[in-house]
Amino acid sequence: MSATALIAGTGALPRLLAGVISGDWVLCEMEGFPSSVPGIEPVRFRVERLVPFLDGLVDRGIGRVIFAGAMRRPRLDPELFDARTATLVPRLLQAMQSGDDATLREVIAIFEDWDLEVVGADQIDPDLVPGPGVLTGNPTNADAADADRAAAIVAALGSVDIGQGAVVAQGLCLAVEALPGTDAMLEFAALHQGLRPNPDGARGVVFKAPKPGQDRRIDLPSIGPETVKRAAAAGLAGIAWEAGGVLLLDRAATLAEAEARGLFLWAR
Amino acid sequence: MSATALIAGTGALPRLLAGVISGDWVLCEMEGFPSSVPGIEPVRFRVERLVPFLDGLVDRGIGRVIFAGAMRRPRLDPELFDARTATLVPRLLQAMQSGDDATLREVIAIFEDWDLEVVGADQIDPDLVPGPGVLTGNPTNADAADADRAAAIVAALGSVDIGQGAVVAQGLCLAVEALPGTDAMLEFAALHQGLRPNPDGARGVVFKAPKPGQDRRIDLPSIGPETVKRAAAAGLAGIAWEAGGVLLLDRAATLAEAEARGLFLWAR
Repeated sequence: MSATALIAGTGALPRLLAGVISGDWVLCEMEGFPSSVPGIEPVRFRVERLVPFLDGLVDRGIGRVIFAGAMRRPRLDPELFDARTATLVPRLLQAMQSGDDATLREVIAIFEDWDLEVVGADQIDPDLVPGPGVLTGNPTNADAADADRAAAIVAALGSVDIGQGAVVAQGLCLAVEALPGTDAMLEFAALHQGLRPNPDGARGVVFKAPKPGQDRRIDLPSIGPETVKRAAAAGLAGIAWEAGGVLLLDRAATLAEAEARGLFLWAR
Repeated sequence: MSATALIAGTGALPRLLAGVISGDWVLCEMEGFPSSVPGIEPVRFRVERLVPFLDGLVDRGIGRVIFAGAMRRPRLDPELFDARTATLVPRLLQAMQSGDDATLREVIAIFEDWDLEVVGADQIDPDLVPGPGVLTGNPTNADAADADRAAAIVAALGSVDIGQGAVVAQGLCLAVEALPGTDAMLEFAALHQGLRPNPDGARGVVFKAPKPGQDRRIDLPSIGPETVKRAAAAGLAGIAWEAGGVLLLDRAATLAEAEARGLFLWAR
């Protein structure tokens, strides 16, 4: 089996994967964006020198690549480009202008041009991406209706390539995810939770899903203990998500947090 | 000319319209939701007694109705329904389950069943709903691109019957309007304005539009001096909106505020 490159951004996922990857592997980080993986010296790369980096991976016998964790678009320094990476720029710029999904698809395509197989986190650890089922708690019919409505909203947002989440209570949309992310959305929902028409009615659901048509090997939305804490602070009844399309980070801690706070966790 | 009923909710619009309606008119308010129109004793109504209210309007010689200002969905007390209003409940409930637009369309249809003509605010004062043009400032090409992207997002949100606004900076969506409204969205954008990738690049645009297919006689989105203040606090370059589809409340004060803070106002 060939070796694996873990291209690590921020967040808990790179650390979780580092603990379970089998076989030889190397940690890679974008310069200026250190990952949370402790105790391993990373290979650092810059987008401006992507071709030498890819050549280097192949030279090390890497055959498989996993992208894990959040990466922001770096600012590019025109003086740092090598000649071969420069020829990729038109391809990347065109993709970037079509949105995040297009950018990620193009990045995957470039890695594949080097015969590197790009795999998703679920191929390393299937437990990270739960299939259908209620993991804890008891969603009511009203919760299911709120989850349905939130799922429709997230699907509509996906068509314009933004957001992977929404908060719905009693059929009304309290918050929608945008660039600031899930935690910011839940903070906003907490601030405005008093808008629920019936204070004794359904408390509401946060729903997460990948964008329609998104390549599921990169940038799956994720849920973890912090999501549960913030959903509880927003007074919600639970967290629902698209089964097979969302990373459950730190399953034990997330379940414990949800049980302690009386929230349901539901992969639909 | 028959008399007019101004069905007034909260916000500045009812007061503005009260100053310019010609001919005889009466002020109507939903019980528990006082309007901002000073010095006039309103006719108060409850949804549970809608039929007697409609009969009363006809008896007073009302032929024209304007809905103005924000109204929340009231909580309904089953004991207060009269028999005839009760027969309308299935119609209203079915519409309410299909979202706000459907509810408003059904409310209009019910008023029309009583031969009451429902008119929009622009029929009272065309200046309230500006046609195409830049009212102040100079939107750049980058601002136009941000406004285009925001318009696409708002259109997508409209398909699931939520939101009438979005904030986009440098092509990235910082915030999306949901139930808490425009001011809350701009506050959220202000909180997260540091996410703009290029601090020296385009500052971003808030865009507002009615929902696609929305009946433009009720519930048009609106812009006023407060919108300008909050857009400025979020560091935005200006405010853009769909020409003919957004109420400009208090035009003089809004323009003065925008000029003082260097924001553009653009009906597209």
